[in-house]
Amino acid sequence: MESPRRPRLTPAIADVRRHVRALLPGTGPPGQSVPPGGLVLVGLSGGADSLALAAATAFEAPRAGLRAGAVIVDHALQSGSAQVAAEAARKAAELGLDPVLVVRVTVEHGTDAGGPEASARTARYAAFDRALHDTGASHILLGHTLDDQAETVLLGLARGSGPASLQGMKPVGGPILRPLLGIRRAQTRQFCVDAGLRPWQDPHNEDPGFKRVRVRQTVLPVLERELGPGVADALVRTAMQLREDSSALDDLARGLSDHLSEQLSAQHDEPAVPGIRLEVRELAPNPAAVRQRIVRFAVEREFGVSLERVHTLAVLGLVTDWHGQKPLDLPGVRVVRQDGWLIFTAPGPAPSKGPSRSHGTPRH
Amino acid sequence: MESPRRPRLTPAIADVRRHVRALLPGTGPPGQSVPPGGLVLVGLSGGADSLALAAATAFEAPRAGLRAGAVIVDHALQSGSAQVAAEAARKAAELGLDPVLVVRVTVEHGTDAGGPEASARTARYAAFDRALHDTGASHILLGHTLDDQAETVLLGLARGSGPASLQGMKPVGGPILRPLLGIRRAQTRQFCVDAGLRPWQDPHNEDPGFKRVRVRQTVLPVLERELGPGVADALVRTAMQLREDSSALDDLARGLSDHLSEQLSAQHDEPAVPGIRLEVRELAPNPAAVRQRIVRFAVEREFGVSLERVHTLAVLGLVTDWHGQKPLDLPGVRVVRQDGWLIFTAPGPAPSKGPSRSHGTPRH
Repeated sequence: MESPRRPRLTPAIADVRRHVRALLPGTGPPGQSVPPGGLVLVGLSGGADSLALAAATAFEAPRAGLRAGAVIVDHALQSGSAQVAAEAARKAAELGLDPVLVVRVTVEHGTDAGGPEASARTARYAAFDRALHDTGASHILLGHTLDDQAETVLLGLARGSGPASLQGMKPVGGPILRPLLGIRRAQTRQFCVDAGLRPWQDPHNEDPGFKRVRVRQTVLPVLERELGPGVADALVRTAMQLREDSSALDDLARGLSDHLSEQLSAQHDEPAVPGIRLEVRELAPNPAAVRQRIVRFAVEREFGVSLERVHTLAVLGLVTDWHGQKPLDLPGVRVVRQDGWLIFTAPGPAPSKGPSRSHGTPRH
Repeated sequence: MESPRRPRLTPAIADVRRHVRALLPGTGPPGQSVPPGGLVLVGLSGGADSLALAAATAFEAPRAGLRAGAVIVDHALQSGSAQVAAEAARKAAELGLDPVLVVRVTVEHGTDAGGPEASARTARYAAFDRALHDTGASHILLGHTLDDQAETVLLGLARGSGPASLQGMKPVGGPILRPLLGIRRAQTRQFCVDAGLRPWQDPHNEDPGFKRVRVRQTVLPVLERELGPGVADALVRTAMQLREDSSALDDLARGLSDHLSEQLSAQHDEPAVPGIRLEVRELAPNPAAVRQRIVRFAVEREFGVSLERVHTLAVLGLVTDWHGQKPLDLPGVRVVRQDGWLIFTAPGPAPSKGPSRSHGTPRH
């Protein structure tokens, strides 16, 4: 049997506890404050990462004036998953976590563009949301490590969807806290050994049918072998700086986007059409990275549509490469340049035109 | 024998020529204009990339009202290198390039922190500079392809020196033009086949002693196999967006850095000390990415020193985590916070202190 009580303070245990302490509400960064005696939850799979996190949180939370519980998500994707969840719940209770919730979710196969991993993720985060709501907890702590972060960055790179995909996971994102992003996976395993905890080995973590598993088992080891050790650290350091850069530009452009967007109003004898406009001469002098964000944020706010990069660039072609283009009919929004303004309206029948109206087509 | 004259217009030849045409001075982006009849040079190794570039430039330059020559750098690192250079020069002349310069350089072994590849690169770019000066050419065209760019981005990632290292090569950087950054290496090989040109196979390109060769032969193929094809494209797309983001922040922060930096002036009865100061309350409200750049640019301009990230963060610790720290003695600059200002002076003996003065030490 396990003996999780009163483990020796080994380096791995001290490291993990220190990272948890640094991010716990009240002791962590400003803005994370909660009332004393507030509740936090640990997302527990039973694997080494989340088990170490659960043990460290059970130790640190009372010292920060907090209560700590656990939520275990049973994805019901493997036979015996209910058994695994029950076992994790038993360990959580042994560690002194209270309440301990087991939530069984249904993973919708094939509904998510990102494949089965993304569907499971969607179901898991929805379960976390419900658990926060049901228990009144302020935060949920997740056991993602530096290795997970490096894998995320590499997967983002392979998608090529730009800085956004490269940013990796945030240590603090709304109610979600990830205290272990600076901890190597090997340290959480060592924590469990040192604390006499026996983690569950998720067979999914060995299944090369998953891209993330291939990154873990093949891609990162090849990178470390050919380019030198420390690639995981390098990826994570880079991700952190990109997050800073991107968030600075986002802040700047969001302010400009709010400031420059004008609601369309009734003109002459025509009724007002819902939509917004941006003045070309206000948009043009900004650097490309800022111009693109201004347009993207304005469309997002007004139409709830996230423009793809190729579409954002098509819109900005009306600014930087204007030669009398036709209106652009993009997914969820129609854009036309007129009298020095970019005019954004909902897609659909063009107002006051005959049935034979000619639609513009995207330039890319 | 080769028959480089009047090749059929195959897709590969059309593609390469189009990319060259788009970037040639006068026809390319604004700001690249040169007087008619001006001279451009092609950097030629004799390999497929630069040979295709040379042939396409020989074709396109006259049509853009330009003359085109070539410069061949003999690195003298392999026996027979003079022969290889002479052969490349012969091909350049056959293609109609004029003048054709062969420059033999001495690569300083071990003087460059980046190893032999970096030393060869330094010598090569110095030779390009001299060739531009000696011939009066306005630009030099280099044959880097999309594959080279993807390799550069991956190598930067492995270094982990942040957005700067991830940016990859610029299509236009001062007098250097890289028209083939959107062309795959396989296309340049096809160009040579189609045009009856026989490229030189550089044995260095097969030597796994070079990191770049390992990226090309092992790392990128593993990434493509495990994460899906198109990884090279994805890396390059990401690099382009990061270049836009970083350059927008650089522009913004450079302006702020100029505006906020004040030269130190004589105070009270003490003489003026060379250096600058930044007011903490002006610096603090900026996003982290901007604060860091303001400090970095100010130090660079005043002291000619590029602060490493860890040192920049130490300086900003005086802003965001002020608890009465001692002066920071960083490589090339000393920073102290005093009366709400960050004061940057040259390192060395502290003014008006006794011989037992205590130096502060960097915090990281």
